[in-house]
Amino acid sequence: MKIGLDMMGGDFAPLEAVKGLQLYLSETDSPANIFLFGDEEQINPLLQEYSIPAEAVTVVHAPQVIGMHEHPTKALKEKQQSSIAVGFYYLAKGMVDAFISAGNTGAMLVGALYSLKSIEGVLRPTISTIIPKEDGKTGLLLDVGLNADCKPENLNQFALLGSLYAQHILGIDNPRVGLINIGEEEGKGNILAQATYPLLKDNDQINFIGNVEGRDVLVDKADVMVCEGFTGNIILKLAESLYEITHRKTIEHEYFDRFNFENYGGTPVLGINKPVIIGHGISHSRSFKNMLKLSAKMINSDLMQRMQASFGEVK
Amino acid sequence: MKIGLDMMGGDFAPLEAVKGLQLYLSETDSPANIFLFGDEEQINPLLQEYSIPAEAVTVVHAPQVIGMHEHPTKALKEKQQSSIAVGFYYLAKGMVDAFISAGNTGAMLVGALYSLKSIEGVLRPTISTIIPKEDGKTGLLLDVGLNADCKPENLNQFALLGSLYAQHILGIDNPRVGLINIGEEEGKGNILAQATYPLLKDNDQINFIGNVEGRDVLVDKADVMVCEGFTGNIILKLAESLYEITHRKTIEHEYFDRFNFENYGGTPVLGINKPVIIGHGISHSRSFKNMLKLSAKMINSDLMQRMQASFGEVK
Repeated sequence: MKIGLDMMGGDFAPLEAVKGLQLYLSETDSPANIFLFGDEEQINPLLQEYSIPAEAVTVVHAPQVIGMHEHPTKALKEKQQSSIAVGFYYLAKGMVDAFISAGNTGAMLVGALYSLKSIEGVLRPTISTIIPKEDGKTGLLLDVGLNADCKPENLNQFALLGSLYAQHILGIDNPRVGLINIGEEEGKGNILAQATYPLLKDNDQINFIGNVEGRDVLVDKADVMVCEGFTGNIILKLAESLYEITHRKTIEHEYFDRFNFENYGGTPVLGINKPVIIGHGISHSRSFKNMLKLSAKMINSDLMQRMQASFGEVK
Repeated sequence: MKIGLDMMGGDFAPLEAVKGLQLYLSETDSPANIFLFGDEEQINPLLQEYSIPAEAVTVVHAPQVIGMHEHPTKALKEKQQSSIAVGFYYLAKGMVDAFISAGNTGAMLVGALYSLKSIEGVLRPTISTIIPKEDGKTGLLLDVGLNADCKPENLNQFALLGSLYAQHILGIDNPRVGLINIGEEEGKGNILAQATYPLLKDNDQINFIGNVEGRDVLVDKADVMVCEGFTGNIILKLAESLYEITHRKTIEHEYFDRFNFENYGGTPVLGINKPVIIGHGISHSRSFKNMLKLSAKMINSDLMQRMQASFGEVK
């Protein structure tokens, strides 16, 4: 297994990426070979300093960096020697099995959508977030911002992608799917939610339990919560701010600690043929370690093949 | 000043309404005359028990009750002697200056929208919620569920209605208006947000500061936050659930205490010609007291006249 890691992505790269790599190697019995994309002059001394065994990694020199605020499409086009561009090249060619970056989110999305293929039958790939439930369980919310405007069929597909992810990565059997909505009964909600409900109800590949309201998001009602990316992104960023606010107010409680995104590492792009994981710009070592573990899990669980098979069935 | 109060509305009526009335009278120097709508056989003994002075109130016998789960339009039509129907009749005829109920929300909305007139120029009335900001300040979020699907012009009007409410009721000078969105810059967001931005920017009756993201909702960035009722309702109910979750987990902190809706009493319907306040079904005495105070403030501040004048200017 070969996992590609962008060493130049994120506010604390490459140092925190190296430290995360060290953590991953120390906590993993048979680690993947990690391909490190970035400026070797910056990377090599750090690998030595943190005693990363040479046989564990393959450094791929990529001298350019796409900055956090560069225009994604333009930057990817003009900086073909950037760590993100080279990483996607390796992934597309099958020279790595997954690619991780905490760099420019837009460039990662453009790379994922254009240098890789969508799974056949998937209309729109999606991104998700983990939602810590009150009782200690974990939920999945999607879409969280890739698709600001959606059609009912998009949400129906997100439900299936999310269910497969919840089952094979989060380990939730027969995950309960809820439609984010502003009322409990069928027929409630905005035009999109009203039109989506019957599709979810008729989808025999998912375990649809009906609508879930804002008050249900943090409690153990649905495992997979589906909405368009506008509402999902507002919920995601509100949840992230809860961690920051409780931190600033020194409200210490394990529940709010679980809102720390570093626990989960990053968000995979779902609906494409290969694992791509996008990290937060402010990722630290723990986050990099968790993204490496998540990539390995996505590869080992055959998640992509399972998604391909499920969408093949739909056709 | 005469304020109408539905004594039969809410899960703990009429007892908590009477206790709230007692609190209001004890805390107010020159209280309004309160018109109590409901079953006098239930109300009168409680008024005596809680020593409510006869001259402070006027009991209006309304023997019917609209249940919390009845169909709003049907119930209002068939139960013309219900406390809600009689309350709206008094308000429409000018026999009271405001009307409050913690009863069937749908019936309250139908009553507000159909027995009263919208302010001339207002396309769609709206409901809002108070958002407790991290630094102790208070924000206003609207719409929170009355208008699940909106046009850009609706959001532009909500911005003005919210600004006037923030200024004259919440006491915020020149309130900063933010558009709830999933990106900072103009041009970001879904189709609705993209189309709304230029309207807000060109609206010289408001102090538009640009987009606000999910992470800005609880911090002191904008005083008035505008969105369609789908996203707003999800935020509202998520915020309410935060109070409940921290309460259940015995996480004690004054910040989360501020998420207790009883602090604010209820939500006014904005954009109609007279003050109507809708309380939460589980309102207790404190909530009833606060709704009475809010009604008095809405009357004393001439909020409705100010709204009428502002929308008159727009035309």
